[in-house]
Amino acid sequence: MSGPLPLPEVVSHDIDPQMEPSRLVYTFGGAAPVASIRPGSVLSTSTLDCFAGRIRSSADKVSQVCDPRFINPQTGPFYVEGAEPGDTLAVHFVSIEPREAWGVSTTVPLFGSLTATATTALLHPALPERTWFYEIDRADRVVRYAALDTPYTADLPLDPMHGTVGVAPALGEVRSSLAPGDWGGNMDTPEMRAGVTCYLGVNVEGAMFSLGDGHARQGEGETCGVAVECAMETVLVVDLLKATPTPWPRLESDDFVMTTGSARPLEDAFRIAQLQMVRWVAELTGQTEMDAYQLVSQTSLSPVANVVDTVYTMVAKVPKSVLGTTVPMRGTHARLRSAAAAYLSSR
Amino acid sequence: MSGPLPLPEVVSHDIDPQMEPSRLVYTFGGAAPVASIRPGSVLSTSTLDCFAGRIRSSADKVSQVCDPRFINPQTGPFYVEGAEPGDTLAVHFVSIEPREAWGVSTTVPLFGSLTATATTALLHPALPERTWFYEIDRADRVVRYAALDTPYTADLPLDPMHGTVGVAPALGEVRSSLAPGDWGGNMDTPEMRAGVTCYLGVNVEGAMFSLGDGHARQGEGETCGVAVECAMETVLVVDLLKATPTPWPRLESDDFVMTTGSARPLEDAFRIAQLQMVRWVAELTGQTEMDAYQLVSQTSLSPVANVVDTVYTMVAKVPKSVLGTTVPMRGTHARLRSAAAAYLSSR
Amino acid sequence: MSGPLPLPEVVSHDIDPQMEPSRLVYTFGGAAPVASIRPGSVLSTSTLDCFAGRIRSSADKVSQVCDPRFINPQTGPFYVEGAEPGDTLAVHFVSIEPREAWGVSTTVPLFGSLTATATTALLHPALPERTWFYEIDRADRVVRYAALDTPYTADLPLDPMHGTVGVAPALGEVRSSLAPGDWGGNMDTPEMRAGVTCYLGVNVEGAMFSLGDGHARQGEGETCGVAVECAMETVLVVDLLKATPTPWPRLESDDFVMTTGSARPLEDAFRIAQLQMVRWVAELTGQTEMDAYQLVSQTSLSPVANVVDTVYTMVAKVPKSVLGTTVPMRGTHARLRSAAAAYLSSR
Amino acid sequence: MSGPLPLPEVVSHDIDPQMEPSRLVYTFGGAAPVASIRPGSVLSTSTLDCFAGRIRSSADKVSQVCDPRFINPQTGPFYVEGAEPGDTLAVHFVSIEPREAWGVSTTVPLFGSLTATATTALLHPALPERTWFYEIDRADRVVRYAALDTPYTADLPLDPMHGTVGVAPALGEVRSSLAPGDWGGNMDTPEMRAGVTCYLGVNVEGAMFSLGDGHARQGEGETCGVAVECAMETVLVVDLLKATPTPWPRLESDDFVMTTGSARPLEDAFRIAQLQMVRWVAELTGQTEMDAYQLVSQTSLSPVANVVDTVYTMVAKVPKSVLGTTVPMRGTHARLRSAAAAYLSSR
Repeated sequence: MSGPLPLPEVVSHDIDPQMEPSRLVYTFGGAAPVASIRPGSVLSTSTLDCFAGRIRSSADKVSQVCDPRFINPQTGPFYVEGAEPGDTLAVHFVSIEPREAWGVSTTVPLFGSLTATATTALLHPALPERTWFYEIDRADRVVRYAALDTPYTADLPLDPMHGTVGVAPALGEVRSSLAPGDWGGNMDTPEMRAGVTCYLGVNVEGAMFSLGDGHARQGEGETCGVAVECAMETVLVVDLLKATPTPWPRLESDDFVMTTGSARPLEDAFRIAQLQMVRWVAELTGQTEMDAYQLVSQTSLSPVANVVDTVYTMVAKVPKSVLGTTVPMRGTHARLRSAAAAYLSSR
Repeated sequence: MSGPLPLPEVVSHDIDPQMEPSRLVYTFGGAAPVASIRPGSVLSTSTLDCFAGRIRSSADKVSQVCDPRFINPQTGPFYVEGAEPGDTLAVHFVSIEPREAWGVSTTVPLFGSLTATATTALLHPALPERTWFYEIDRADRVVRYAALDTPYTADLPLDPMHGTVGVAPALGEVRSSLAPGDWGGNMDTPEMRAGVTCYLGVNVEGAMFSLGDGHARQGEGETCGVAVECAMETVLVVDLLKATPTPWPRLESDDFVMTTGSARPLEDAFRIAQLQMVRWVAELTGQTEMDAYQLVSQTSLSPVANVVDTVYTMVAKVPKSVLGTTVPMRGTHARLRSAAAAYLSSR
Repeated sequence: MSGPLPLPEVVSHDIDPQMEPSRLVYTFGGAAPVASIRPGSVLSTSTLDCFAGRIRSSADKVSQVCDPRFINPQTGPFYVEGAEPGDTLAVHFVSIEPREAWGVSTTVPLFGSLTATATTALLHPALPERTWFYEIDRADRVVRYAALDTPYTADLPLDPMHGTVGVAPALGEVRSSLAPGDWGGNMDTPEMRAGVTCYLGVNVEGAMFSLGDGHARQGEGETCGVAVECAMETVLVVDLLKATPTPWPRLESDDFVMTTGSARPLEDAFRIAQLQMVRWVAELTGQTEMDAYQLVSQTSLSPVANVVDTVYTMVAKVPKSVLGTTVPMRGTHARLRSAAAAYLSSR
Repeated sequence: MSGPLPLPEVVSHDIDPQMEPSRLVYTFGGAAPVASIRPGSVLSTSTLDCFAGRIRSSADKVSQVCDPRFINPQTGPFYVEGAEPGDTLAVHFVSIEPREAWGVSTTVPLFGSLTATATTALLHPALPERTWFYEIDRADRVVRYAALDTPYTADLPLDPMHGTVGVAPALGEVRSSLAPGDWGGNMDTPEMRAGVTCYLGVNVEGAMFSLGDGHARQGEGETCGVAVECAMETVLVVDLLKATPTPWPRLESDDFVMTTGSARPLEDAFRIAQLQMVRWVAELTGQTEMDAYQLVSQTSLSPVANVVDTVYTMVAKVPKSVLGTTVPMRGTHARLRSAAAAYLSSR
């Protein structure tokens, strides 16, 4: 840790906002890589919003403007050199910044957590379809909400994040970018913000990492189904842990270790995340599973990620302060944090 | 708000830790009141731990020491003068302090979120039954965890709360103190801490308020089913909002309004809490429901309360900072906070 | 089994259709017995429909005509002499016959399986509230359906049953007659028809048996929430199996043994019913649980009972033909069938 | 309809039981067609059992003998000429017959409905892994069960069916053959037997129809996760309804129309199937949705299909007798039944 860090290699890959929607990528798995990345590299990239930029005013309705086949385009996939099934991909978010001074949220017919859906199939007609425009003040770090039906306004903290981060799934599956699962995908957790490292188990050669679905902010649960959606400029450091399976996506910040689970019903998402955390804590602290179960039971924060996607996502979040001196994932987070600092200071 | 506040009336009622378990109260509804309280009064009381103090060492197993009919005794019910169906009972927690320098957690056969249960009925034998003793350091505000199978230890922040707070249910029902619902009951949310006001819809004359199940702390979800259980000394201010229905329990702190929902599957608990929040925010801000849905979607924190009880509990938590100058529940929280301050300064 | 059977004692108890709704019984537990029954007796009784007869034409809407506190009145409770916790009450349905030549179904705001409800809490307004009147042709055994909005009609087989059959719950609980659970209650399974024996675990002295909610017929699931509701004249034989716990209600017909489970989500109702069946089959056939699991997996019919009540109910139904020569529940079904025959032939 | 029916074209395609497991097809979508079929043709084919024939004795354990990537091989996909998105593929099962005189069932670690699974993630170790061999007596139409741990035996009716029947999914997805959904797939319903017509919405050009997972019989729910698995010889008639979307798979027998829904929790599978049935009945009878809701509520049978796969499957089953003279799906079932008869009489 002494001496100046070597500058990481930087790969730049921008998505073309003018690209024909049908030519963008809407799946995890099943698409050819757009670039190759060496582990340890910085990736400087950008993402379209989930509507591929088609919603331009509060008069635009998703059901009229968007083709349902072309929702939630991803940037990628990126082929990570040397990645093989059984490895873990580590992705550290150096920065996630809205590209424009606006974001958008909507209701979408039969989508969201307080409405009938295609799955919670009921006889109700869809709720009204509405579109909210937000001003994003990047200087003041504020997202400005304005009600549609009354003059009510409120300033909300800017808290940029990616809803969709993942790799190609196992078993030869190709999954829509609307779905979350053990490959990551559309987890929609506000914990996926700058400063965090995301760990994803590799299922196919090259991992085939993609990301998208930037949110200027979202509530936990993404209740109406749509966050403050915006195009993003995002910088990541990408790394590889060889021969390290990670069954479900994990996150690490300076202060917390986090696990995710994605399933319906929501208690199964909770169970997956908690069981993963119990096993991780047992491994990190050398405790038995029953002891780790006890420690997690008294210390886990359990924020909801989404209750709207094809399956729902929960996060288990344990403070590192109760884990003693243990270093998760062989110190990857600290190492990537340093690489990020080196990159930022070189700019 | 000018001049010194009048001192509120103080009612003292302690539970007798030596009382025969069969004579304690284990239900909401169905029991005769132990005392009568005038709205505006301070109630100084105490509660037994959920095992009625029967677990005294890590050698004690719940299934051997406790009678399954006599789990989670409540202090109360208290008859609140003037309370009628359609009113709301407000309960402000002035202080919640462990009575002893120890707490206890256990696993219980077929109870918890990472085990087969009577409801998630599977062919597995029960997980091992274990008991963890915690030292509670009230001066340092620390709960000391010690693993059973290895020498691992960790200091956790003391964060006392009540798992069970409620009134008699509607429809003439009598419900076990193990169950949460729209009457409150065993919600097991760590948000039920000192400084918070809890609002409960009144279903029967006198409301019949009870509380119990003190926790020195718990994780969100109470994953293993049992928090750091301890007897408590608790001071509350009790108030009444006439002709104000509250369909599901709400909480208010200085910075947040909170709603709860209790149901299975867990997404229905989430839906109840979120819908209650949307309606409350609409009412508070004068927005339409669709606008309030949008604002809640971008601002709600959504911590899990429990995923272990007869039904599960979720909390929706919106910062008052996005609600403008509105005053929830006619200023009850501020008023009870002042009464609490007057009481505390008089001691 | 030789010689003519002695005539069983007959207890007659009719419910008064003119009784003031507030004086009827709407709970399991919490009410004083209306009569006492000796095991082995025939009970000849009658039940009101779930609306207490208030819906008299297709112009009557439940939300206008019925007080929500007074829905689903029960006949009973009956005190069964000698019944103690740990026993099983056996109730054989000799006959269940509509008292009138009409029945009624409705939609009820925010109730049913294809609508938002109080629990699956959504932003949708309630579905339209409608009332369908059915002619019941007791001679032709037909229930005549007529659409409200078009001239469409269809004749459906008359298949009378009781939606609600149960005893007082455990743990001192008092439960609304709208709820199903391990005490029975509002299970709403069409299997509860004449010729069937229902077994219920006894939780309190005297068992406190009640029944109601007659249906001229219903589909599996009771999808809209309301069957073809009608007042019933019902004859049962009541018996007691001492020192025989029955954790969840069971049914037995000439050809099938059946178990029930009531829970949400619906898979937990399925799991309860299947696990109860696996254990029952293991006990009846002397097989291990793993072998019984296999046999049940290949032979169980699994009809839905209801997906509309406070929790949902599933039935597991295994043909006796795969159980060899074993005699379930010590031959109670055959014995009560004989008593029923003796009673019927004496009329 | 007069005169002898023309003999349908017959396509024969057998799966090679010696084929290397890694070369078989385990997905819906993502594989090249094995043959092309003209609508109206008979397809005479065969399928491997879900273990690709690897389980040969009760000593074989799935976790030891099978590669988890190579479970549930499908025969196909078949390219159906002229099939386009928006069409419906009709598949009539002429005959489904076990190829061998034996079948096999097993438990599989962390798979089934009465065990912890990867999704209902718990701390329990897996249940014991066992394998049951069944003699299939094709002459007597009997499947012979023999317990492993005791001498208990039982003869069960032979009732052959396909667990897995489907087309390529929408949105460019490729789904494991272990998953059921709106494309069909691993629905595991015993209703998929000879004499039934299955309707599947077409998502991609050519439909890409596959089938597999033959069961000599199964209980409703497939409780332990594995039916009496066997290789099958199956004859189908394949047809196409142009410009006829079918959102979820439907089945039709001589006496019933059936819809399916696949989701978790199980009540959502129920809701999907019931809503599809309400809409189908409304369309067939010219009734409004509210009237069809009522008629379905009183007449639907609601058997469980599976409670073990990646999502669960329910069936709604309404007798044609209550649908008047209406002819579902433009008479396709009757037409294919005639073609089947013509084919069989020509043999």
